[in-house]
Amino acid sequence: MMFERAAIIGLGLIGGSIARALKGRGLAREVVGAGNSLAPLEGARREGVIDRVENDPAAVVKGADLVILATPLARLGPLLEALWPVVDGEALLTDVGSVKGPLVRLADRLALSRPLGFIGGHPMAGSEKRGFFASRADLFEGTLTILTPGAATIPGTVKRARALWEGIGSRVVECSPEEHDRIVAAVSHLPHLVAYALAAAVASLDEALLGYAAGGFKDTTRIAASPAALWREIFELNRGPLIEMVARYRAELDRLEGYIATRDWDGLEQALEAIRRQREHLR
Amino acid sequence: MMFERAAIIGLGLIGGSIARALKGRGLAREVVGAGNSLAPLEGARREGVIDRVENDPAAVVKGADLVILATPLARLGPLLEALWPVVDGEALLTDVGSVKGPLVRLADRLALSRPLGFIGGHPMAGSEKRGFFASRADLFEGTLTILTPGAATIPGTVKRARALWEGIGSRVVECSPEEHDRIVAAVSHLPHLVAYALAAAVASLDEALLGYAAGGFKDTTRIAASPAALWREIFELNRGPLIEMVARYRAELDRLEGYIATRDWDGLEQALEAIRRQREHLR
Repeated sequence: MMFERAAIIGLGLIGGSIARALKGRGLAREVVGAGNSLAPLEGARREGVIDRVENDPAAVVKGADLVILATPLARLGPLLEALWPVVDGEALLTDVGSVKGPLVRLADRLALSRPLGFIGGHPMAGSEKRGFFASRADLFEGTLTILTPGAATIPGTVKRARALWEGIGSRVVECSPEEHDRIVAAVSHLPHLVAYALAAAVASLDEALLGYAAGGFKDTTRIAASPAALWREIFELNRGPLIEMVARYRAELDRLEGYIATRDWDGLEQALEAIRRQREHLR
Repeated sequence: MMFERAAIIGLGLIGGSIARALKGRGLAREVVGAGNSLAPLEGARREGVIDRVENDPAAVVKGADLVILATPLARLGPLLEALWPVVDGEALLTDVGSVKGPLVRLADRLALSRPLGFIGGHPMAGSEKRGFFASRADLFEGTLTILTPGAATIPGTVKRARALWEGIGSRVVECSPEEHDRIVAAVSHLPHLVAYALAAAVASLDEALLGYAAGGFKDTTRIAASPAALWREIFELNRGPLIEMVARYRAELDRLEGYIATRDWDGLEQALEAIRRQREHLR
């Protein structure tokens, strides 16, 4: 038994799937949960995924040797600050947010007054579906989880968090919160921003037959159908790295458009071929 | 029997699939073909998809009452010009290129000296796979084909071309070559250009863990793996409409980035939500 009592705050797709995986693999004797919505909590209890639910996060973390924050991104900071004084001193405390810098810097500050076994985590187990009722015990199998130790991370915490994520089927890599945030700005946040801009540009056209022809385009911009409130939070929390990536991207778009504007077709073809080859190297 | 002799120039994915569909549905008594590569021609003859092959396009179109140009985009113009004097006066002459303006304007000029039953066509039946050996008799089922009549299009030609495409399973809509080119610039060419720029921007990053995290990103930029020579041709032939769409797109990207730069998070969320709703209306 890896944990005696695991407390999960937020029972959406990720929190619910962690609860199922911990139970299913016998990694936690008891799984307790807190969340804002009644339906997931009741559903989780009925299914035996959660042993006990509470409305109050502070009540649920008491006596837990594993605490996982799995709420929407914007709530993670306030929650970390509120729970820091009440989490058990020996507990492993982690989160699943998709932006890491601000939260890890906050934890580093909180650790000045009370050292705790906190480490930031990001399971890259996205899904089109959302919410507890889409959660699955095997959600993390074959996925990648990035752990982001901060300046105040206690020795041993990385190892415990690694055992947790590997225990539920994920591969684990470590990097700084800053490197993490630059990577997700590049491979996730910028592509989402670009998809929104593409969808907006096309929707602004006034062609009678546009709707007929837009089938494949809807695949291309599918990620622009994601909830606006979620992406507002992500763009807000990862503002700096995202703005840097947008600048890099603009430079590349300028370069490619330059070949087209100046009719340098050989230059364009060489550039496209070089990009195709570089992209292949991203495994 | 819709056609006595169908001549197909270029036996790649599209040309090969048209040949299979015509044979399979008994729409042409005889299907003859010409192409640059020996392997597809021999393969098509062995399989009985093509009754007779020639190396010379001019030889194959003689006596055909249907002529379909299905070569790479850059060869369509020269080929149309070369074949115009030798195509049978009563034949239906069409093409499958993904840019229509330049070819239809060329046909309008050629028709001044010799009126012919030409109409531009674009079956939107893309596939990751390419070449004759990926061709299928059912490739066009459930797809959309856009027909683009020009100033010189002879009455009745639209109707004959519609019967051809509907006969092999496609839905058909008509619009001007100019509208067509604006639509494909929007829903296909701009997204490809953007995917190339995205892939280039990310490849320019120097993060050690980038490769691990780039799984989903590779889906996003999959279209940047398309052959550079093909996209050079498309961008070249559709330069004007593409540059206009890039300008629209830049305006939207500027607007979204503006919200982020000025930290107008409510404005950003409203804009993202409006885009999500607009996009839903593109069927």
